[in-house]
Amino acid sequence: MKTAVIGLGSMGLGMAKSLLAAGHEVTGCDVSAEAMARFEAMGGAVAKTPATTALGAEVLVIVVLNAAQTGNVLREALPATEKDAVVISSATMSPADARAFEAETVKQGRFYLDAPISGGALKAAEGALTIMASGERRAFDHARPALDAMAATVYELGDEAGAGATMKIVNQLLAGSHIALMGEALAFAARMGLDLEQVYEVITASAGNSWMFENRAPHVLKGDYSPKSAIDIWVKDLGIVADIGKAEKFPTPMAGAALQLYLMASAAGMGREDDAAVTKLYAQIAGLKLPTGDR
Amino acid sequence: MKTAVIGLGSMGLGMAKSLLAAGHEVTGCDVSAEAMARFEAMGGAVAKTPATTALGAEVLVIVVLNAAQTGNVLREALPATEKDAVVISSATMSPADARAFEAETVKQGRFYLDAPISGGALKAAEGALTIMASGERRAFDHARPALDAMAATVYELGDEAGAGATMKIVNQLLAGSHIALMGEALAFAARMGLDLEQVYEVITASAGNSWMFENRAPHVLKGDYSPKSAIDIWVKDLGIVADIGKAEKFPTPMAGAALQLYLMASAAGMGREDDAAVTKLYAQIAGLKLPTGDR
Repeated sequence: MKTAVIGLGSMGLGMAKSLLAAGHEVTGCDVSAEAMARFEAMGGAVAKTPATTALGAEVLVIVVLNAAQTGNVLREALPATEKDAVVISSATMSPADARAFEAETVKQGRFYLDAPISGGALKAAEGALTIMASGERRAFDHARPALDAMAATVYELGDEAGAGATMKIVNQLLAGSHIALMGEALAFAARMGLDLEQVYEVITASAGNSWMFENRAPHVLKGDYSPKSAIDIWVKDLGIVADIGKAEKFPTPMAGAALQLYLMASAAGMGREDDAAVTKLYAQIAGLKLPTGDR
Repeated sequence: MKTAVIGLGSMGLGMAKSLLAAGHEVTGCDVSAEAMARFEAMGGAVAKTPATTALGAEVLVIVVLNAAQTGNVLREALPATEKDAVVISSATMSPADARAFEAETVKQGRFYLDAPISGGALKAAEGALTIMASGERRAFDHARPALDAMAATVYELGDEAGAGATMKIVNQLLAGSHIALMGEALAFAARMGLDLEQVYEVITASAGNSWMFENRAPHVLKGDYSPKSAIDIWVKDLGIVADIGKAEKFPTPMAGAALQLYLMASAAGMGREDDAAVTKLYAQIAGLKLPTGDR
């Protein structure tokens, strides 16, 4: 298939690579020349604008930061795609935004899949992502070869845009709050004199465990806050939870507390550090020493 | 060994059963005549007071609700035990309480293990608990046959009381907050029109998963709030987190939000229901329908 991937960050680059590996024709585009060079080094084609990237594409994958960027890309790239092309839209956004983009796409005679992703950069590069998707049956059918190339699991969550975005937001609500709790628990344990390596050993074998505790606590134990996923990603995603809550009049006090912690960490200058740095926020407030990674 | 178990609730009964199964002599005691009858039906001996229960015991297991009850039992039962007896104290309590009980025990020439438990009633009955323990080396050595009978894993966290209690509290901080988040996420998903069975399938396979989400969300899906662990347990345990936080001047905003949610659920009359009923609190507030378990 002729495919276009707009957004060659850690996720988009891996998805583009998986499409290539499955034998599809792939043109990529990113605002960063460095990202484009990385994709060219993998054997991919690149183009300078969304419109030239999408020229003649049967599948257009948009994997940018947020709804605003997705909207800009969509407006520029959609007219250049084949008639009946499918947009696979993977940025995390509100269901209302996803529904608006679906309407815009359908109006131009194309198909739209509300298709957020989960799994991280490694799984993206292996074609082993989880895709939480909703959209018309024909959108799934047309895009199937591309979905199969990029994902180990495709959840089909309904026949219109919105359900995919909502499921991703539910996941982010939990994941972001669990990371904040990981930071709170590790800092509390350190304050009370526990050995953090022992805390990791006991908690990961106990009822207090979470996927995020298991995955992020090692960053704190190593004192390594180089960004795998940044504090500001959670300002954005828990911000979407808060926006939906306001619009729908639905309270989320736990995710609300977590959002404030990420805002505090961002205000304290840690916005681009790894999200495990929320632990450092507690440590700074309470004057605690955490592991530094120095031996 | 001659052992005594005071507190034959869902955890204590299982621990007494495991001691019996390992060939130890076990006398049990509980304020509930029904609990004592259950233990007698398993072949255990019972006695009416903590003092008569503990008479001549080499190991005294105290597995009651909280520190206040532990203190009462300790004062009545300790003088009746053998010299060099080991107290295995398993109620969740603050490290300060655990240290005070250790001092009281040592003053009377006995040994104290600060030994909170994790794993649930089923693992208690199978002798497969996790015990998070701290105390003198000789306390561990003397109590080893009883510990091995009750636990699959015994974490040795230090040579004085306090570390065991703290580790348990760190686990409870996470576990209780994760259940509140499970409720928040499921109610949010229901409000947004997602299918909750699908939410369970996707989240348990995604980064938003937690041990508690996986374990408790099925109660909500079945509409079954018969108490495995009750709302009021979290009012108690997250209350200990809050008390420690105040005493040590350490903020826990996430666990603090969770405590308020359990207080709201308790105030709304759900204190003795299963802890997954925190989901019903969100549903009541927002006028949502959750699964009822009726077919």
